[in-house]
Amino acid sequence: MKLIQGSVTAAKGFKAGGDFIGIKAKKKDLAIIYSEKPCVMAGAFTQNIVKASSVVWNKTILEKGEKVHGIVANSGNANAATGEQGHKDTEQMAALTAEAFSIQKEEVLVCSTGVIGVNLPMDVIAKGIPQVAKQISGTEEGAKNASDAILTTDTFSKTIAIEEEVEGASFTIGGIGKGSGMIHPNMATMLGFITTDINITQEMLQKALKKAIDTTFNMITVDGDTSTNDTVLVLANGEAGNKLIDTEGKDFDKFFETLYEVCKYIAVSIVRDGEGATKLLEVNIKGVADFTSGKTLAKSVLTSNLVKTAFFGADANWGRIFAAMGYAGVPFNPDRVDITIESIGGIVNLLKQGLPVKFSEEKAKKVLLESEIKVLIQMDEGVAEVTAWGCDLSYDYVKINGDYRS
Amino acid sequence: MKLIQGSVTAAKGFKAGGDFIGIKAKKKDLAIIYSEKPCVMAGAFTQNIVKASSVVWNKTILEKGEKVHGIVANSGNANAATGEQGHKDTEQMAALTAEAFSIQKEEVLVCSTGVIGVNLPMDVIAKGIPQVAKQISGTEEGAKNASDAILTTDTFSKTIAIEEEVEGASFTIGGIGKGSGMIHPNMATMLGFITTDINITQEMLQKALKKAIDTTFNMITVDGDTSTNDTVLVLANGEAGNKLIDTEGKDFDKFFETLYEVCKYIAVSIVRDGEGATKLLEVNIKGVADFTSGKTLAKSVLTSNLVKTAFFGADANWGRIFAAMGYAGVPFNPDRVDITIESIGGIVNLLKQGLPVKFSEEKAKKVLLESEIKVLIQMDEGVAEVTAWGCDLSYDYVKINGDYRS
Repeated sequence: MKLIQGSVTAAKGFKAGGDFIGIKAKKKDLAIIYSEKPCVMAGAFTQNIVKASSVVWNKTILEKGEKVHGIVANSGNANAATGEQGHKDTEQMAALTAEAFSIQKEEVLVCSTGVIGVNLPMDVIAKGIPQVAKQISGTEEGAKNASDAILTTDTFSKTIAIEEEVEGASFTIGGIGKGSGMIHPNMATMLGFITTDINITQEMLQKALKKAIDTTFNMITVDGDTSTNDTVLVLANGEAGNKLIDTEGKDFDKFFETLYEVCKYIAVSIVRDGEGATKLLEVNIKGVADFTSGKTLAKSVLTSNLVKTAFFGADANWGRIFAAMGYAGVPFNPDRVDITIESIGGIVNLLKQGLPVKFSEEKAKKVLLESEIKVLIQMDEGVAEVTAWGCDLSYDYVKINGDYRS
Repeated sequence: MKLIQGSVTAAKGFKAGGDFIGIKAKKKDLAIIYSEKPCVMAGAFTQNIVKASSVVWNKTILEKGEKVHGIVANSGNANAATGEQGHKDTEQMAALTAEAFSIQKEEVLVCSTGVIGVNLPMDVIAKGIPQVAKQISGTEEGAKNASDAILTTDTFSKTIAIEEEVEGASFTIGGIGKGSGMIHPNMATMLGFITTDINITQEMLQKALKKAIDTTFNMITVDGDTSTNDTVLVLANGEAGNKLIDTEGKDFDKFFETLYEVCKYIAVSIVRDGEGATKLLEVNIKGVADFTSGKTLAKSVLTSNLVKTAFFGADANWGRIFAAMGYAGVPFNPDRVDITIESIGGIVNLLKQGLPVKFSEEKAKKVLLESEIKVLIQMDEGVAEVTAWGCDLSYDYVKINGDYRS
């Protein structure tokens, strides 16, 4: 695997662009990703009962199994809880984009992120889509503009591209993502757009995406809130020229592993840029009964406000971690639990076989003052291992969310 | 029902006291509640797998069905995750108290609250228990001292007493409680001690407590964290002289209703005094399929950090309320949901049949700047109605929990 520049325009045949069109006050707010060659697609969407109309649109296209040419996405307005007009507006966004590229509206996926319950300013969008469509390019700058245009409270862009080989050809996967509040993906996530030139069937693409998402996007949490708009989309246009991947095997594994790295990078970047976050927390649980139990335990720890504030305050309050495991609803023997914290500042055992370890507060502080901290939990319930990511809870989280109608 | 003074010493035959003995730095930290006459008891305890040794001790006594004389409780140290020594120390606390009153250790209930994972300073406790035992009295001051001695980060005492009549006699129920972090009771709660002179069987007392707790203590949340020590205990010494309540009927109903009011008062007081809380939030859901669905939906709204910070910022961000309902895991039709906010500042409809209502931001601000706010949610799934209580999330919550190893 080789990290390369360019994110969503790194793979052959993809263009992208983004610009300010007037939905937000002044930042870029409309992005387009486009492939001349039609793409097979895979997608994963929010499980929230309150779904944005764009989610409904994309799911319908995915279920039909038709090929698509691209994605149009706006930030600043989620077009969720907007009723019949919301559905019409989503369809209109697809139609306007289709018009600009002389394709069918059903070949355009639509995403929205921002405030809930406000109808889209369609006059602004009607002018903005042709404007951005004209600007798209296969350059790094085009990808950067698209990546900027989907951000809301994010403080940095999340972009990545990786090149890898399968039999007879090299291929590329590039992606962009955005957070950074209402992040507790269930089945899907905030927004993640991934493009690749691999030659693959829709079935295998969807299979790879599902598998990658389960251990990346679905293992992160910022604030425990699952958004109405969470969406990850992958477009594959086949331009790498490899032998079609239509079954599991060596090529599929290579593709999956690369896709996994792209998903993990975007997912972890989103947590790292969580609203108000000062620290990235990784919870790794070994010896758990199964994946689901481990995921429940890890997320219980990472969503506990008491745990999150303790990390913000660099306080080695392992009692809160232990308590959060205890109320997760997963049966386990508390007398067989070890808890250790680790960072580049060092490593400190806090709990051994359910009992406190006498530790140096000074050493613990040194571990906890770093910006990336691992919580290693060893249990004695089985052989599964899971990793999940979250962040601390700071004054700024309260400030951002007390002030901003997002 | 008549509100009277005195809390846990208001019922006939109960004495109480509390003092500083040296577990905390300077505040009162040991409480004793005592009845000369043996009491039937009822209890509800944390469902956390990580249980304090005192919880184990009290459950064993409750299961044996023996009568008890009182409660000894310390604050400043939870005696949880303290292994075999923890169990010995709990037993020793009971034994020391029993010695002071010439009773059996199995007649003494034990509660602890405070930091997890540190063994109790038993030398301090050995001196402190006789000291407090000597001070107990049936006065208001005795009750006040006991109530102060169980507090941790609480900013005020939670005390109440109600007098009511059953056939042939009047009786009293009095209670004290403490919060105010790690509050998301499951089956039981933080600490709540209730005394009554009603003449009742243990079976009926436990029945009344279970029923009262389900709709009071179990419907509150401060931070979504279920403690390792949650305990509510009721002691009934029968001194009211009423005909023994040993079955359901008019007298049981009267007793239950009074107990419910005492539990509700203590539970809501705990939320009102939630760590860093500036606002009490009441979520009332009508038209929900059943109690469990309603509880899940209400708690999903009240534990959402995005909802909590929006209330802190007095922002009528109903999208966050709607989204929190949507990811609660309870099926419902989002197109049949109304959301209204109400306080003494007024009433404002935000969502009607799943669609935003055009509302005056100024009027909404007026509602939201009050310290007690109701969120009224109307659904169309059934006829059940539930009420739950929570609080906002402020800078002070982060400050308290980033700084304090509680």
